[in-house]
Amino acid sequence: MAEFSATEHQHVRYNPLKDEWVLVSPHRCLRPWSGQTEAAPEDQPPDPLNPLLPSAVRSNGQQNPPYTSTYVFPNDFPALLERVPEPPPSEHPLFRSSAAKGTCRVMCFHPDSTMTIPLMSIEEILAVINEWVNQLQELGRRYTWVQIFENKGAIMGCSNPHPHCQIWASSYLPNEPRVKERCQKEYYIKFKRSMLADYLKEELKKEERIVVKNDEWVALVPYWAVWPYETMLLPINGRPQRMTDLNDVQKRALAEIMKQLNIKYDNLFKCSFPYSMGFHGAPTGASKAPGDSPHWLLHAIYLPPLLRSATVKKFMVGYEMLAQSQRDLTPEQAAQRLRECNDVHYKNKK
Amino acid sequence: MAEFSATEHQHVRYNPLKDEWVLVSPHRCLRPWSGQTEAAPEDQPPDPLNPLLPSAVRSNGQQNPPYTSTYVFPNDFPALLERVPEPPPSEHPLFRSSAAKGTCRVMCFHPDSTMTIPLMSIEEILAVINEWVNQLQELGRRYTWVQIFENKGAIMGCSNPHPHCQIWASSYLPNEPRVKERCQKEYYIKFKRSMLADYLKEELKKEERIVVKNDEWVALVPYWAVWPYETMLLPINGRPQRMTDLNDVQKRALAEIMKQLNIKYDNLFKCSFPYSMGFHGAPTGASKAPGDSPHWLLHAIYLPPLLRSATVKKFMVGYEMLAQSQRDLTPEQAAQRLRECNDVHYKNKK
Ligand SMILES: O=P(O)(O)O[C@H]1O[C@H](CO)[C@@H](O)[C@H](O)[C@H]1O
Ligand SMILES: O=P(O)(O)O[C@H]1O[C@H](CO)[C@@H](O)[C@H](O)[C@H]1O
Repeated sequence: MAEFSATEHQHVRYNPLKDEWVLVSPHRCLRPWSGQTEAAPEDQPPDPLNPLLPSAVRSNGQQNPPYTSTYVFPNDFPALLERVPEPPPSEHPLFRSSAAKGTCRVMCFHPDSTMTIPLMSIEEILAVINEWVNQLQELGRRYTWVQIFENKGAIMGCSNPHPHCQIWASSYLPNEPRVKERCQKEYYIKFKRSMLADYLKEELKKEERIVVKNDEWVALVPYWAVWPYETMLLPINGRPQRMTDLNDVQKRALAEIMKQLNIKYDNLFKCSFPYSMGFHGAPTGASKAPGDSPHWLLHAIYLPPLLRSATVKKFMVGYEMLAQSQRDLTPEQAAQRLRECNDVHYKNKK
Repeated sequence: MAEFSATEHQHVRYNPLKDEWVLVSPHRCLRPWSGQTEAAPEDQPPDPLNPLLPSAVRSNGQQNPPYTSTYVFPNDFPALLERVPEPPPSEHPLFRSSAAKGTCRVMCFHPDSTMTIPLMSIEEILAVINEWVNQLQELGRRYTWVQIFENKGAIMGCSNPHPHCQIWASSYLPNEPRVKERCQKEYYIKFKRSMLADYLKEELKKEERIVVKNDEWVALVPYWAVWPYETMLLPINGRPQRMTDLNDVQKRALAEIMKQLNIKYDNLFKCSFPYSMGFHGAPTGASKAPGDSPHWLLHAIYLPPLLRSATVKKFMVGYEMLAQSQRDLTPEQAAQRLRECNDVHYKNKK
């Protein structure tokens, strides 16, 4: 039999952050696609009644200020409320419920509805990052988990093209960070080192999964990536555990790498690249203090659904929902394709 | 403050099968929807060149027999192959890969492309179930896990409307069954009883989450359901651990309840209801024997994406991908709506 080649032969890879495996089937890249296609993420004509615009009146009658940079307000249809009656204690181990308190906010990135991160200036992205830090500082005092996330593009269920993200803070530690907390803790106890710091060290040596890099941050396709062009942003210096640990140099470099990565994303299929992205750092809350979670390393993750073009996505269905995630192109192939994308946004090309 | 009411007040619920929580925010049912809508799952005109038809020639040049009931053939673009070189041993705990062998098959349910489970006769559905048992018998001898699953509808990435499912058998135990194996084992060790048998006993008493029931099977919305109209089929008698344990009475009753549940699904939004569904039972393989896994109870799960209508689905994005699943209507409300759906398919109404 031929020798094993990761870009040709199926195998499974382990995600140590989530204690999960992914099936990699590179030979399947040849599969033709005759299924559902998506509407291309086109530039919609600006909607003058967009409720996220400066000075717009929202559905609840409140008026936005004439903001010129970022703007944060409470989500008008929050999944989490601050004050609600609590469920009674559960009576059976198979029917357990528990109290959930929280708050949901919306944060506009920019007053202009046609803007996106790859088209914004470094100063403008820096304003977004500074506001994220403020939000985490404030909400992190009271809440165990503050999830900052951006759903971008109609394909991601985003109902408004205005550049914005959401912030959901909760009294409980949600599933994803709960598993990452456990896995990183176990690794730290075993090796006395941070898992992601160790991981980053190896990736910087290997280079094959790195998409873009500056003095403070690396954007790479994780060895265990599930989505076709999934990436992770990792800080190179100082081991920040939470966004609130970032210094000014790291914040500016984060703005720069976010812009660079997103330009490559947009250039890949010549479209405004849809994704869900967000930040994961050490849990917060009243009992937490800076530096208390050396097993954690702050990171951002980008989960984009597109597979072959602006209109053909990867469906995570059937086998993925019932058994295990499966990917066609390898993480190394994805990193290479992104790396080779131009560093000038296709809209700004003369 | 008001007293707690599960249909009004947010809370989290625990899924003991997967060791995960779901956020239930029933107050959010009021949220308007202005985001992406899907094409309604319409009846496509039958395609005379459909490669799944009896006697059709498939893309690899092979011709299907003139089949009149079910028909199984190897997937022409398999994610899992039987003979491939194996990856070398991993050199670093954060870069682990492992061998994956397997096979992927496609199984047509019926020669007629316009047929679906709710429209098929009990005899025809029984033929499907008997073939599933055959497949599990054969592949289960060699493989650790045999995943039978159906992706139904273009919205689920299904590229061919012909009624069919897939069977992916693997040398490894995939994530989802691996977690279910662990959780059911832990419960069994602690309580000396099967988790799902205990669970079913309680649900039969409570009744509020039951959608439809016959002498052998119950279809219910699990207490911890994540998708809006997610359901689970559980066997009432004899504790079958795998599909191969089912007796003739159970198989016929399974055909009946599958038809009944799917009629209700189709009637809910007056459309051919899309979903991914599949079966989970005790792992298989050479070392396994009937009756060896008393912690397991065979069950089917249906994971349908629609939320409000034939064109508005629940997006599992952003918060769901990065933090935790969230649902609006409660599992009890979903069960009630399905229960109240007519038992005669809307297409067969005079
Ligand atoms: O095999 P199909 O139907 O072409 O493909 C579909 O189901 C597979 C198994 O659930 C998924 O991996 C694919 O993403 C999906 O498009
Ligand atoms: O809050 P939005 O943008 O209206 O809603 C979107 O994001 C939420 C958080 O990821 C999801 O729960 C919803 O399913 C999705 O449609």
